[in-house]
Amino acid sequence: MSRGGGIERLSLNQATVRQWTVEELVAGCVDAGVPAVGLWREPVAQCGLDRASKLVRDAGLIVTSLCRGGFFTASDSAERRRALDDNRRAIEEAAVLGAPVLVLVSGGLPDGGRDVDGARERVVEALAELAPHAAEHGIGLALEPLHPMFCSDRCVIVTLGQALEIAERFPAGQVGVMVDTYQVWWDPEVYAHIARAGERIAGFQVADWVTPLPRGALVGRGMLGAGCIELRRLRDAVDAAGFRGMVEVEIFNDRLWTMPGRALLDLVVARYREHLAEG
Amino acid sequence: MSRGGGIERLSLNQATVRQWTVEELVAGCVDAGVPAVGLWREPVAQCGLDRASKLVRDAGLIVTSLCRGGFFTASDSAERRRALDDNRRAIEEAAVLGAPVLVLVSGGLPDGGRDVDGARERVVEALAELAPHAAEHGIGLALEPLHPMFCSDRCVIVTLGQALEIAERFPAGQVGVMVDTYQVWWDPEVYAHIARAGERIAGFQVADWVTPLPRGALVGRGMLGAGCIELRRLRDAVDAAGFRGMVEVEIFNDRLWTMPGRALLDLVVARYREHLAEG
Repeated sequence: MSRGGGIERLSLNQATVRQWTVEELVAGCVDAGVPAVGLWREPVAQCGLDRASKLVRDAGLIVTSLCRGGFFTASDSAERRRALDDNRRAIEEAAVLGAPVLVLVSGGLPDGGRDVDGARERVVEALAELAPHAAEHGIGLALEPLHPMFCSDRCVIVTLGQALEIAERFPAGQVGVMVDTYQVWWDPEVYAHIARAGERIAGFQVADWVTPLPRGALVGRGMLGAGCIELRRLRDAVDAAGFRGMVEVEIFNDRLWTMPGRALLDLVVARYREHLAEG
Repeated sequence: MSRGGGIERLSLNQATVRQWTVEELVAGCVDAGVPAVGLWREPVAQCGLDRASKLVRDAGLIVTSLCRGGFFTASDSAERRRALDDNRRAIEEAAVLGAPVLVLVSGGLPDGGRDVDGARERVVEALAELAPHAAEHGIGLALEPLHPMFCSDRCVIVTLGQALEIAERFPAGQVGVMVDTYQVWWDPEVYAHIARAGERIAGFQVADWVTPLPRGALVGRGMLGAGCIELRRLRDAVDAAGFRGMVEVEIFNDRLWTMPGRALLDLVVARYREHLAEG
């Protein structure tokens, strides 16, 4: 592998380098030869949607996804309506940015509630409302199962099998699944589900799992290779299932966020080459 | 329900009142009318195995389980041998105590390793060695799936379905599964797996899930009713599957461990009546 090679399918998710603005992200990726980025709505809004869109296009960067929509599980109807409206705006933003998919974190149990089946049903209902709107804008919805430790407060969709069962109720181009190594690595069925997912794989995100878990577990994802996940095996599995998209590095880690952005990006590139790049 | 009633199937797992010695546990349960206890090896050893056994028998208490064996996943053969020997001793201790089952926490990934499939295979191999020894002593092995957040460091068996698939390779009286609400509540398949488990259900433990997770997540299980788990629904499901054993309250919570033991036991009894007792 040449020094410059091996990162043709690397996408840098913006959350990995949260210390950077959109401008810094674009400049940094161009400089490092990273061909693609995953974007988040909040920093894009800070930059300005149209300006962010122009920046990435002018730089020749591919946008792999927009994070994120979802949070569909409110039982209150006004709150639910607000969530759906917000998701419609997110779909429209994805279209402006040229992101092929909007990543969905479905939401946890409504305040103080215990009705996990009900919350799961509300996710399906929300997808039924949103999928046609997304299709009109040429955007796919990427339902992401989160790790079961987030079931109560962030996402009642917790396995790839469960996400697939829901996605399969919709046309393949409309609803797919996001495979994130951090969220799914523990699942004894993960390779079977990836194989079954096939063209439903709407995106592939990578981070490592380090032990012990930090408090709250939201911002302690591991740098590639720092933990116990078989990253290359999972990448090979999604590739074998037919996935041809980018490998998006998305690491929420509050210590990494204290690094100078460029040093962090260089680390990501080096670790990606070691643990994920094609030989 | 009468004031004294409703706790005929309550078993107090010793870890819930870790502030108590075996002597205090026995006296406290007798005084509160709690008919059963789950024991742990370390405090039993501190009391003396024979003495602990005599104390619970003389008090007329039922022993529902002994915690715990397992930690089978070492790749080093000497360490593996030590683990198996230790499990044989645990089986013999369970027999002395009159505990029908030994609870198994299978073990995580061996140091720095990533081979989760290999670790899972080692669990199966260990069960094949231990199950006949357990059967000779009249002890069942209760394979416990832990929450997936413990997969890396404590237990590579993470779903009830996976535990059942392993248990089903052995005679039903030899290897069963421990259903612990804290570990399995998030699983979209949990009710299907409980129904399928039937006579394989070797025990039923209850604790609640509170949000947010504490650091490390080991000692922040919730008091019954403090969290989001549908405890009664899960109890009804194990009963419907044919389980007739005790409902063992096992709550690891470092704040509860600062309470006077008796006040904590009274709280357990009250919450059990509210959230788990038969009507």
